[in-house]
Amino acid sequence: MAEAVVTMDGWCKLHDTRTFDWSTWKLTSEEERNAAIQEFQELMKKWDAVEADKAGSQSVYKVIGNKADLLFIFLRPTMDELEEIKRDINRSKLGDFLIPSHSYVSIVEMTMHNPMEEGKDRELSPQVEARLKPILPKWEYACFYPMNRRREQNANWFEISKAERTRLLYEHGMTGRKYAGKVKEIISGSIGLDEWEWCVTLFAHDPLQFKKIVYEMRFDEVTTKYGEFGDFIIGAYLPNDDFAEYFSL
Amino acid sequence: MAEAVVTMDGWCKLHDTRTFDWSTWKLTSEEERNAAIQEFQELMKKWDAVEADKAGSQSVYKVIGNKADLLFIFLRPTMDELEEIKRDINRSKLGDFLIPSHSYVSIVEMTMHNPMEEGKDRELSPQVEARLKPILPKWEYACFYPMNRRREQNANWFEISKAERTRLLYEHGMTGRKYAGKVKEIISGSIGLDEWEWCVTLFAHDPLQFKKIVYEMRFDEVTTKYGEFGDFIIGAYLPNDDFAEYFSL
Amino acid sequence: MAEAVVTMDGWCKLHDTRTFDWSTWKLTSEEERNAAIQEFQELMKKWDAVEADKAGSQSVYKVIGNKADLLFIFLRPTMDELEEIKRDINRSKLGDFLIPSHSYVSIVEMTMHNPMEEGKDRELSPQVEARLKPILPKWEYACFYPMNRRREQNANWFEISKAERTRLLYEHGMTGRKYAGKVKEIISGSIGLDEWEWCVTLFAHDPLQFKKIVYEMRFDEVTTKYGEFGDFIIGAYLPNDDFAEYFSL
Amino acid sequence: MAEAVVTMDGWCKLHDTRTFDWSTWKLTSEEERNAAIQEFQELMKKWDAVEADKAGSQSVYKVIGNKADLLFIFLRPTMDELEEIKRDINRSKLGDFLIPSHSYVSIVEMTMHNPMEEGKDRELSPQVEARLKPILPKWEYACFYPMNRRREQNANWFEISKAERTRLLYEHGMTGRKYAGKVKEIISGSIGLDEWEWCVTLFAHDPLQFKKIVYEMRFDEVTTKYGEFGDFIIGAYLPNDDFAEYFSL
Amino acid sequence: MAEAVVTMDGWCKLHDTRTFDWSTWKLTSEEERNAAIQEFQELMKKWDAVEADKAGSQSVYKVIGNKADLLFIFLRPTMDELEEIKRDINRSKLGDFLIPSHSYVSIVEMTMHNPMEEGKDRELSPQVEARLKPILPKWEYACFYPMNRRREQNANWFEISKAERTRLLYEHGMTGRKYAGKVKEIISGSIGLDEWEWCVTLFAHDPLQFKKIVYEMRFDEVTTKYGEFGDFIIGAYLPNDDFAEYFSL
Repeated sequence: MAEAVVTMDGWCKLHDTRTFDWSTWKLTSEEERNAAIQEFQELMKKWDAVEADKAGSQSVYKVIGNKADLLFIFLRPTMDELEEIKRDINRSKLGDFLIPSHSYVSIVEMTMHNPMEEGKDRELSPQVEARLKPILPKWEYACFYPMNRRREQNANWFEISKAERTRLLYEHGMTGRKYAGKVKEIISGSIGLDEWEWCVTLFAHDPLQFKKIVYEMRFDEVTTKYGEFGDFIIGAYLPNDDFAEYFSL
Repeated sequence: MAEAVVTMDGWCKLHDTRTFDWSTWKLTSEEERNAAIQEFQELMKKWDAVEADKAGSQSVYKVIGNKADLLFIFLRPTMDELEEIKRDINRSKLGDFLIPSHSYVSIVEMTMHNPMEEGKDRELSPQVEARLKPILPKWEYACFYPMNRRREQNANWFEISKAERTRLLYEHGMTGRKYAGKVKEIISGSIGLDEWEWCVTLFAHDPLQFKKIVYEMRFDEVTTKYGEFGDFIIGAYLPNDDFAEYFSL
Repeated sequence: MAEAVVTMDGWCKLHDTRTFDWSTWKLTSEEERNAAIQEFQELMKKWDAVEADKAGSQSVYKVIGNKADLLFIFLRPTMDELEEIKRDINRSKLGDFLIPSHSYVSIVEMTMHNPMEEGKDRELSPQVEARLKPILPKWEYACFYPMNRRREQNANWFEISKAERTRLLYEHGMTGRKYAGKVKEIISGSIGLDEWEWCVTLFAHDPLQFKKIVYEMRFDEVTTKYGEFGDFIIGAYLPNDDFAEYFSL
Repeated sequence: MAEAVVTMDGWCKLHDTRTFDWSTWKLTSEEERNAAIQEFQELMKKWDAVEADKAGSQSVYKVIGNKADLLFIFLRPTMDELEEIKRDINRSKLGDFLIPSHSYVSIVEMTMHNPMEEGKDRELSPQVEARLKPILPKWEYACFYPMNRRREQNANWFEISKAERTRLLYEHGMTGRKYAGKVKEIISGSIGLDEWEWCVTLFAHDPLQFKKIVYEMRFDEVTTKYGEFGDFIIGAYLPNDDFAEYFSL
Repeated sequence: MAEAVVTMDGWCKLHDTRTFDWSTWKLTSEEERNAAIQEFQELMKKWDAVEADKAGSQSVYKVIGNKADLLFIFLRPTMDELEEIKRDINRSKLGDFLIPSHSYVSIVEMTMHNPMEEGKDRELSPQVEARLKPILPKWEYACFYPMNRRREQNANWFEISKAERTRLLYEHGMTGRKYAGKVKEIISGSIGLDEWEWCVTLFAHDPLQFKKIVYEMRFDEVTTKYGEFGDFIIGAYLPNDDFAEYFSL
């Protein structure tokens, strides 16, 4: 019987993707449009104050392709805060134009698979704290995807030994290290919380790196044999300073 | 040939998930909004009187993530009462803003797999009665998911012996017991009633426990080999006293 | 090579499930609402006259759960009559509020698998006639589900011998007989007509019996090995006398 | 390595299924409704002139069940003509009420599998011409379904020899011949054009024949082992003379 | 362990498919319609200037069948330009009528599998440059489809050796060469960017060639054993000079 590993768990995370209703926006007066943007920017200031206090983090991205328009990523200590943020968006004037299109709930986690970490003190060292309660890097691009581990006959992640799982994830981690400085990642668990078992958020200066790392990792045994993936969505970082400009007509 | 087990069956259960139409709500006058909330609170008082009489139970949850906004869970002795409740919601003023997004129908059940229970008198002892006609714990969080047992070649739940099924579920139950005081569960059957074979509702004080128990249980042989899961949805308990506040603008 | 069996075929059957647009209904004047209900009741009288003449049958059900609101089941000698009925509903005033949500087309059938029937004269005896042209029992609950037989490697219904199929269905029928008086069923074929191969409509006085029979049948070898199921939908019978009351505000 | 067979290719084919917006239609004045029908009948006259010139063919069907209301089938020498027809429908007054619900693009084809045809001169004999550029039979019913051939391990249509494929399709053809006079079929290829590999349109005087032929063919080895099917949709022929009547209130 | 191959990567590519809202268009005044078309043509001139500068490329296609109406293909050096183009479309007057229906994001790539290319200098020769930064051929038809390579037990693309993958793709390429002059293709990678692993855009003078090449390639071992395909969509080229005419009433 395979053994579950201990996870260390951090902040709650929400990916909230929206389609912008440009048609109705165009029918709205300039005055109302400006009021909607200003009100939303007040909301964003409140969020940024939380980030400044290291009590959470968030970023907004312009989605590439027409499946959605804006991707919000929020990290907070509690699910209640995520629910309130969603409600604040929906309650805002701009919220009338931000039609929900995709959502994903998870909790940032570290699994103690990596033998280099196995021996370390599991107390919340500053390094561990930084990984479990991450401030989102304001890099130019983000990529989100959910994933499962297979439970097929002869390829069942939850049946193989902990040692074997550790070996496979260690190898996987080695591929990731090649992208140091090019790609950052946040892994969170969503078993019991949303549709898939885990989800990954990647950050890069160049979106080509998303393609390169995910392609190369597809040859890692852990992916080749056990990985199942949902849809990938990518976005370009939208700094607060450019926020109002995004909605200009 | 495998043998079906006897189930004891209790109350009918409805999960009714709704998206709140904030855009139209904002266009509604304060007077009408207040009237809608008051009318709905009358409905809730009627429901609570039923719970006080131990003739049913219900709770409302704020859904985390933007897939939906409110989750209603209702337990009643008959399907007709569940249908009337749904119609009462839809007929109410607030119902115009509560767009149906997900629904699940089942009947609370106990299967007599557990050898520790096998020997007991199957009459409706107060303990059994409490499990089959449960008053929903007003804990801070709820988690819902539907599930099937696999019917694959070489992994067919309905082909293995009753003794083997009992063994697997007993082991599964042992994992559950580790979470005593942290997680409560209600299991209901939906074969012949809805899309999946069973569904599970979990309650916790901390949503991290949903992730922990479902992750750990994924290593139980019964799950590893035979479990198939639908989407998970989680919510934060919305007490009646906070109900009106939820809809404030 | 497996051999097809002879089927005897009866009336055409339509399951037509609708969501009721309560929001718009509430905006409609009482006079118009009454006119819509009265007009629809005239339609229903016309349908009932057909049933009185044994030239068809129908019933209306209140759907449990929020996936839909009303389920209409129609049986008629021809597909054209089913198409006209659908158009009559859509053309009616009430039809504006009955948004289509699910539909299923099939033809009532008897397959000559049962060895107890195999020897009988296949002329349309009154008993056979009653099964192929059934008047829907006005029992309290109905359950609908579509199904396929598997065509997998090593589990291919259409590859095993007719004798084996007969044996499996005979055993299946024996399970069904245990529910005599509790559950009635109408089996119809939809190969070449709709999305699945067959569909089943069950009737019961107590909806718990749907769960019990479908659960017990899941252990029949024919289901364990060869059954694939679509979504189940259940409803509570809505007698004509209660029809107007259903729509009251 | 298996070998592709030569196909002979004929007209382009479009199945265009529409839901009729009865609610808005009822809000339209009789004058406008009549104008919309007359304008559409002019369009249909133009189409019929093309059919009279043997430069294309079309038929309209009333869909059974509530998944859609009208099914248009168009055959034309070029894809451009199909695109123009679609646009003509959408541009027409009646087009405002014809909401697209399903669409399928293919090209009529003959594969040279049948050994009885293999030896024949492949020039466009009048018989071959009639099969590749078919005038749709104005029979009472039509049935449409798309299909794939499996590419599974040990059941891979594209891996078995051409001789074996020919044998399987010859046998399949023999089943079809039993339905001569009862069922006509048009086979078209959609690899590279739409969602499935092939699609089939059947015509019959009695819709029961769709169920009988598709059921019997399910026992043909080619289907049992290699067939995958999409949804079936059936309709009743709507002659031009009855077209206006269809829309009456 | 199989080895990833080096890819050379070129322009970012967006397929953006839209349904045209003819009903609302008909309610719009001729003046406003003309203004919307003229404004959009200005946008197209801007795009064409980019293509003239070899800094990108694009084409518009009329979609065959009613799944969508217009397909836009855009190639640009950066994802940001693709996002801006989408926003420019949505912000335009015509954008109000162009309802998003399908979208696909990828990056043009060359994998160094082909042994004939393997030995070549990998610097950006003009030929390689032309393949990675392609100007879309203004041929009469285009075909788009996404695809995966299988990761099944005994049929796992990412487990077989690089030499074997090279052999299979070389053979595949030989099939493609038979269609020289008839079919052009652009292959792009979408691992880490969108729903599938790769996508293919084909161009032809005759849409029958899409059916012929994709059918013939289905017999290539690489497809037979490892190919998984999404939906195919085809369109007829809409030259700028015919653009205004497309929207005429």
